[in-house]
Amino acid sequence: MTKELTHFNEQGRAHMVDVSDKQITQRTATAYARITMLPETLTRIREGKMAKGDVLGVAQVAGIMAAKKTSDIIPMCHPLPLTKVDIRFEERPEENALDIYGTCRVTGVTGVEMEALTAVSVSALTVYDMCKAIDKGMVISNICLLEKTGGKSGDYRRGNI
Amino acid sequence: MTKELTHFNEQGRAHMVDVSDKQITQRTATAYARITMLPETLTRIREGKMAKGDVLGVAQVAGIMAAKKTSDIIPMCHPLPLTKVDIRFEERPEENALDIYGTCRVTGVTGVEMEALTAVSVSALTVYDMCKAIDKGMVISNICLLEKTGGKSGDYRRGNI
Amino acid sequence: MTKELTHFNEQGRAHMVDVSDKQITQRTATAYARITMLPETLTRIREGKMAKGDVLGVAQVAGIMAAKKTSDIIPMCHPLPLTKVDIRFEERPEENALDIYGTCRVTGVTGVEMEALTAVSVSALTVYDMCKAIDKGMVISNICLLEKTGGKSGDYRRGNI
Amino acid sequence: MTKELTHFNEQGRAHMVDVSDKQITQRTATAYARITMLPETLTRIREGKMAKGDVLGVAQVAGIMAAKKTSDIIPMCHPLPLTKVDIRFEERPEENALDIYGTCRVTGVTGVEMEALTAVSVSALTVYDMCKAIDKGMVISNICLLEKTGGKSGDYRRGNI
Amino acid sequence: MTKELTHFNEQGRAHMVDVSDKQITQRTATAYARITMLPETLTRIREGKMAKGDVLGVAQVAGIMAAKKTSDIIPMCHPLPLTKVDIRFEERPEENALDIYGTCRVTGVTGVEMEALTAVSVSALTVYDMCKAIDKGMVISNICLLEKTGGKSGDYRRGNI
Amino acid sequence: MTKELTHFNEQGRAHMVDVSDKQITQRTATAYARITMLPETLTRIREGKMAKGDVLGVAQVAGIMAAKKTSDIIPMCHPLPLTKVDIRFEERPEENALDIYGTCRVTGVTGVEMEALTAVSVSALTVYDMCKAIDKGMVISNICLLEKTGGKSGDYRRGNI
Repeated sequence: MTKELTHFNEQGRAHMVDVSDKQITQRTATAYARITMLPETLTRIREGKMAKGDVLGVAQVAGIMAAKKTSDIIPMCHPLPLTKVDIRFEERPEENALDIYGTCRVTGVTGVEMEALTAVSVSALTVYDMCKAIDKGMVISNICLLEKTGGKSGDYRRGNI
Repeated sequence: MTKELTHFNEQGRAHMVDVSDKQITQRTATAYARITMLPETLTRIREGKMAKGDVLGVAQVAGIMAAKKTSDIIPMCHPLPLTKVDIRFEERPEENALDIYGTCRVTGVTGVEMEALTAVSVSALTVYDMCKAIDKGMVISNICLLEKTGGKSGDYRRGNI
Repeated sequence: MTKELTHFNEQGRAHMVDVSDKQITQRTATAYARITMLPETLTRIREGKMAKGDVLGVAQVAGIMAAKKTSDIIPMCHPLPLTKVDIRFEERPEENALDIYGTCRVTGVTGVEMEALTAVSVSALTVYDMCKAIDKGMVISNICLLEKTGGKSGDYRRGNI
Repeated sequence: MTKELTHFNEQGRAHMVDVSDKQITQRTATAYARITMLPETLTRIREGKMAKGDVLGVAQVAGIMAAKKTSDIIPMCHPLPLTKVDIRFEERPEENALDIYGTCRVTGVTGVEMEALTAVSVSALTVYDMCKAIDKGMVISNICLLEKTGGKSGDYRRGNI
Repeated sequence: MTKELTHFNEQGRAHMVDVSDKQITQRTATAYARITMLPETLTRIREGKMAKGDVLGVAQVAGIMAAKKTSDIIPMCHPLPLTKVDIRFEERPEENALDIYGTCRVTGVTGVEMEALTAVSVSALTVYDMCKAIDKGMVISNICLLEKTGGKSGDYRRGNI
Repeated sequence: MTKELTHFNEQGRAHMVDVSDKQITQRTATAYARITMLPETLTRIREGKMAKGDVLGVAQVAGIMAAKKTSDIIPMCHPLPLTKVDIRFEERPEENALDIYGTCRVTGVTGVEMEALTAVSVSALTVYDMCKAIDKGMVISNICLLEKTGGKSGDYRRGNI
């Protein structure tokens, strides 16, 4: 393996790597997270939009706002003028799970993997927060990068979740 | 099931629930996250502290700072004057994994579950960011609450991870 | 008039006034804002919760998160551990308007008027943002303090809006 | 009316709309807000710059800093590298009012209406905060967009305030 | 020397030290900074309040707002509900310098040294920013803690600046 | 001297100066700070990386994150998409001092002097925070701009520290 960790300088200390000479291209990334819960909890979430309070509406806003904060949360991330953030939910009652997909886009010199991963993570944490009064045992799992496009290192597409 | 989602008002819209009359007690929470990676990636992280750059040192600072930002990241979380944040790492080479434990404490009217969960999630995301140049396939999983103490709803201890 | 502007020091420069010796009491404040718009815009907002996207759901989250950021936005405001934030909307089709009420509470040494005023202002700005593609002429007006309770200066209740 | 609310995705949930393919042009927006107060309060503000503390100086800084925070405050706003923020005050003693004008500029893919509106709103809220010890009845009103230039939707100029 | 660095856990990694069992007392800290400049620059600053723009007014607001952000800027600092922040300037024309004093106060479990030091540092940096068009050679020096009171470790008073 | 303070508008109030028509060029700035301490304190810092806790590792992360927050901390600074932040430490045992160098880079319309100065200042403040339990008398000094390149005003190189 010859590839190097890029986030360290010649003193062996972390730095925000120099991207001044990288090309400006359109870059997209999609990340995924799953949150597993009691069947009743998922039922309450599904009822929410109609009646008793929209858990996913709050989680959506939280994820989008978190994507914009990524460079403030992840120490070595470059600040980026995101041009798109979208989050989609898929209910998986047969697996007592809620799936979260987050897509970010930028026209810039670095990728938006961390923004997409941060968005789905914070959406999932918000679902936990909104439902923890009835289900403290929820588990967030499978947070991963599904795909990225653009940039010198080329496209990436995960084989399986 | 008679318990209610507490984060909604009588209009069915989200609110930051009134905790004015809850008792001030000492509250602690510990959360967990695992990040799974290529064996070489874990090796690089383990070498880091000695030589080439301390991934976990950065992830540690990121997690602690994120715990303090929790009420700015999770929409319905109350702001809290945290009195302790600690993060510990355990390398699990036999499982190609790094385990992260985060503990928060406060003397206040609400619990610190979200602070502990946010801390371990952001630590894990930072490990991803620091190592993604060599391993885009890392997966963060098993984010859950291990235990909490203090507060009216009593102590909680998860049976298994 | 003998009352003084309290936010200046003896050099005539702004300071964050010393509240160290004020008493800890429970303090509540409610603020109000109105946003006036085209009839069609209000119709779209009213339809939103059912079908096409919940403008007020986003505005609600924005207002609550802004209340928590008040001391970061308003220079001389003290940081406060808010114990409650709630926002309510009332549609006023006969006046082509949406009314916004925000209530904050704290157990502390200073009042929460600015938190309530910031919450309703940011909720109204968010409604503007969500609808500006169809109605740039919306106007936000009547932002005022409706009432406050607690604290040495006593209760305040506005006669009319 | 065929125009659509743009801030929602195909699930009917809020998203930060994709502006990746919009053209980079220079965009300007000017917003307005009025704050009405007791005559004595306005007198105190007018005296301030000379003697007892410069309320408007603080409100100016607050408005400028808020313009830069807009994408952190308004959930679906894109982050923008603002190239100009200016705030001007006009005292209107005959109407017991202070008028606030805020102008923002950017060379980018989206407009700066929300930045200008946020700037004047926060300036007005700061005036309230600085003077509330002597005048709790102040009212902020007429927050609106005066004009915008640049961008595909063309220029906008409000007929009257 | 038997005293220990307290900001590290048993793994030798940084943590936010546990202050849950420390006593709540009133704590005050005063810090100092000097900024040295060309004589003409100081003259311009001194004229500012009357005529051409109040550099110190902006620096004052910046320092106060930074004090409130201290726990967001300094990684291991505890969040604190500051009850007072004040900044004073003294012009020292005989030394081509501007002296800055910052005082913070809290009723809490940890001291406010870092808040006072952050306030004067950011005030000085703001003076630099406001004047750098005419004087890039300004130097900020002598940032130190002048005194602290309250807390178990007792009072501290620096012998000289 | 005919140069003007640029951060004020025609009302004599601070504004964020219009840079819309400035040229996009690559701009770099390097700043410096020194922190003087007891010999034992420096010894402890030097031992840190090996054994008892890496003070400089935390200070490094703090400085990098602060560089990204500069426009949020310094009121009239433009927000900038930084493309590089690096911080280097040099131990100076013969002078009981630690020297800190910070370099920032951007491809944009304004310089990054304030980002570099903020980075070294916050790194130094973090060293103070991490070591204050054993050495309250540390002094931060000599914060200055070492050099800048790019932009219309040309390159700058300080003669001496």
